[in-house]
Amino acid sequence: MSTDFTPVRAVAGDGRASEIENLLREDLRGQSPYGAPQLDVPVQLNTNENAFAIPDEVAAVVAEFIGRELRGLNRYPDRDAVALRTDLAAYLGHDLTADHVWAANGSNEILQQLLQAFGGPGRTVLGFMPSYSMHPLLARGTGTAFIDAGREDGYTLSPEYVRDAIAAHDPDLVFLVSPNNPTGTALEPEVIDAAYGAARGIVVIDEAYAEFARDPRSTALGRLAGRKRLVVTRTLSKAFAFAGARVGYLAADPELVEKLLLVRLPYHLSSITQAAARGALACAAQLQAEVDELKHQRDRIVKNLRAKGLPVADSDANFVLVGGLRDAAAVWRAILDRGVLIRDVGLPGRLRITAGTEDETTALLDAFDQALEQRPDMFDLQEQQP
Amino acid sequence: MSTDFTPVRAVAGDGRASEIENLLREDLRGQSPYGAPQLDVPVQLNTNENAFAIPDEVAAVVAEFIGRELRGLNRYPDRDAVALRTDLAAYLGHDLTADHVWAANGSNEILQQLLQAFGGPGRTVLGFMPSYSMHPLLARGTGTAFIDAGREDGYTLSPEYVRDAIAAHDPDLVFLVSPNNPTGTALEPEVIDAAYGAARGIVVIDEAYAEFARDPRSTALGRLAGRKRLVVTRTLSKAFAFAGARVGYLAADPELVEKLLLVRLPYHLSSITQAAARGALACAAQLQAEVDELKHQRDRIVKNLRAKGLPVADSDANFVLVGGLRDAAAVWRAILDRGVLIRDVGLPGRLRITAGTEDETTALLDAFDQALEQRPDMFDLQEQQP
Repeated sequence: MSTDFTPVRAVAGDGRASEIENLLREDLRGQSPYGAPQLDVPVQLNTNENAFAIPDEVAAVVAEFIGRELRGLNRYPDRDAVALRTDLAAYLGHDLTADHVWAANGSNEILQQLLQAFGGPGRTVLGFMPSYSMHPLLARGTGTAFIDAGREDGYTLSPEYVRDAIAAHDPDLVFLVSPNNPTGTALEPEVIDAAYGAARGIVVIDEAYAEFARDPRSTALGRLAGRKRLVVTRTLSKAFAFAGARVGYLAADPELVEKLLLVRLPYHLSSITQAAARGALACAAQLQAEVDELKHQRDRIVKNLRAKGLPVADSDANFVLVGGLRDAAAVWRAILDRGVLIRDVGLPGRLRITAGTEDETTALLDAFDQALEQRPDMFDLQEQQP
Repeated sequence: MSTDFTPVRAVAGDGRASEIENLLREDLRGQSPYGAPQLDVPVQLNTNENAFAIPDEVAAVVAEFIGRELRGLNRYPDRDAVALRTDLAAYLGHDLTADHVWAANGSNEILQQLLQAFGGPGRTVLGFMPSYSMHPLLARGTGTAFIDAGREDGYTLSPEYVRDAIAAHDPDLVFLVSPNNPTGTALEPEVIDAAYGAARGIVVIDEAYAEFARDPRSTALGRLAGRKRLVVTRTLSKAFAFAGARVGYLAADPELVEKLLLVRLPYHLSSITQAAARGALACAAQLQAEVDELKHQRDRIVKNLRAKGLPVADSDANFVLVGGLRDAAAVWRAILDRGVLIRDVGLPGRLRITAGTEDETTALLDAFDQALEQRPDMFDLQEQQP
C-alpha cells in the first residue's frame, strides 16, 4: 500500500494563506460570498421578494402538479423542459412558442448560461451600474470581463448614452435591466433600439420586474421578432411569488435558444421544479391580483416619501429607491431599529425599499416618520422633487 | 426615436454560418448538446437510473416535506441549505457535520462549482477516461483544460499508474470515479492514497454509485479526515431513486466547502429541492432495500453473461459493462429490437447495461439469449473470463 502522502494541516492564525486558499483561483482569493444580510426582523423589505405568501388555493394546485411527478422521480427529468417552455410561451404571448423560450434555476442560471455561450475568457459584457449586482459576479464566474459604463446623472439612460458606450467598448454582450434594480425605472423603448442597433453582439434585457411596470407595454418582448441577437430574461420569483422555487427563463430567437443547450448542465431543471412552475403559471390570474396590490403599495410609498420631501425615482418594480439621505447607513439602522429591514445597496444617500403588504408598508412609513421626527439630521430634505 | 438598427436575417441553406453561430464561443461552434438518446422503449436500461419508482409511502413523506414549503415560496430559499446539509452529513456518517457537506442541483453542478473555484482558464483537470463522460464537458464549460491520462489494459487503474500520470501532468484538479462509470468497478483505497499523495491540487472522488459497491468500505469518506484537498461527491439520483429531483452533494474539509460559496449562484438550490431531498433522506432505510435488490439483479447479469462466454467487468454500481462484442453497434440494435434500450458508450466491443427490476433484467437476458442464438456472428465468445 502506498503511504507516500503527507498529512495536511491548515495554516491558521499566523497570517499566511492556507493550503486551500492557495489553490483557489487567483481572482477569488480574499473575496466574500454574495448575499444580503438575512436578519430576523418582523418586516423584511430588503430583497424585493413578493410580500404575499402563496395563497392556499395556489399552493394546492402547485402541490397537485408536483404530486404527479413524485412516483417517477427515479427517472431523469425532461432535459429540454418542453411542457414548461410551452406554458411559459403561452403566458408571455407575443406569438412566442416553446422554441423561443428557455428555463433554468433562477434567472441567475439563465444569465450564466448566456455568458458561458457568448461570453467567457477574452470576451466582454457591458453593463450600466448601478444595476443588478449579480451581473458583475456572474461575469467573473464565467471569466467574462465586465465593463461598467455607468449611468447619467440621476441614474438615467438615454439612447445616446447607451449608443456611445457600446461604440466605445464594442462588447460581446450588453446587459440592460428594465425596470432597473435598484432604481426601479423601466427603460424607454428607444434605449433598447439604440442598444440593439449599436451592438454587434447579444443584447440582454433583464426584465425580472416587468409585471410591475406602470405601462405594461414597456416590455421588450414585442421587439424580439426579427432581432436575432435580442434576449429578454424573466423570472417567476417576483410577480409569481415563487422566489423559493428558483425559476428563471428567457425569450429569444429559437436559434439562440438552441445554442444554450451546449452549455446547460444536462437535466439542469428538476422534474419537481418544472411541475411547480407549471402549477404557478396555471394560477397566473390569481397571482396577478397580488401584483396589482403591490403596485398600489409601491405607489403609496413613492407618494408618501415624496410628500415628506424625500426624492424617489419613478418605479416600475416592486421596490423604490429613496434619496435625500444625508447618512444612508444611519437611516438604514434607524429603520431597522423600528423593526423594518430595508436595503443599503451602497449608493451614497440612497436606500432601496421593497413594497410590502398594506400593514408592512404602513410600518415602513411609520418608521420613516419617526426617524424624520427624531433624527432630522440624517436627512437632507432641501433636495426636493420637482 | 432611434431607428438606426439593421434588421437581422438568419443565413441558412447557403453553407455560411449564421449570425448567432458567429457570436458563439469559438470552442462551442459545431458542437452537439450532450445527452443519451431518449427512445420510447418498454425496458430502459441506458442511463443508470434506479429501476424502481418511488414507493407510495416515500412519495407521501416527500410530498409532506414539500407541502410545508409551498406557502412560503414567495421568500428566497436558505442560501446555505443548512438543514439539508445537516441531514446529508448524518446520512454519510464518518463524523461528518453540515460544515463538511455542500449540496447543489445534481452532482454536475457540484463538479462545475469545484472547477469554477479551483480550475478555470489556465488551469487543468486530470481524468482517466473512459469515465463519466460529463467530466470533459464540465471542464470545457468552465474553461478548464481537461487532460485524459487514459487507463491501463482492461480499463483498470493501479496506484503506480495514477501516481505517474499526476507527476507527468501536475494538474490543478484530479477527477477519479469510484465505482467508475462505465466500467462499474470501485477503486482500491491505495489508488486514492496514491493520487492524493502525488497531487498538489484538489483530488475529487466521484462516488455517484457508492451505495451499490460490493464492499461498503470502499468509499473514500473515511479518508477525508486530515486530507484538506480531498473531495467526495455523491448524488441522490441513484441509490435514492431521485434522478428527477436533481440533488448532488459533496463531503470535504469545511474550509474547502466555504470556498464554493464564492462561485455558487446565490439561492441556487430551491426550497422545494431542499425539502424533497430531506424527505428522501428520511426514507433512506426503505430505499436501501431497493438498492439491495438492484445489486442482486446486477450480480445476476454479471453471472449470466459470463456464463454465456461474455466478459463482464466486476461491478460495484447499478450497471455492468459487457465485452466480447464483435460489433457493439449491431448488438445494441439487436437488443433494442427486442424492446430493451441499453447504452453504447463508444467503447469498441462493449456496451453498458443498467440493472433493472427482476422482470426488466429477465427481458434483457432473454434478448441477449435470442441475439446470441440468431446472430452469433455479432459476438466474439473466445475471449472467455478466467
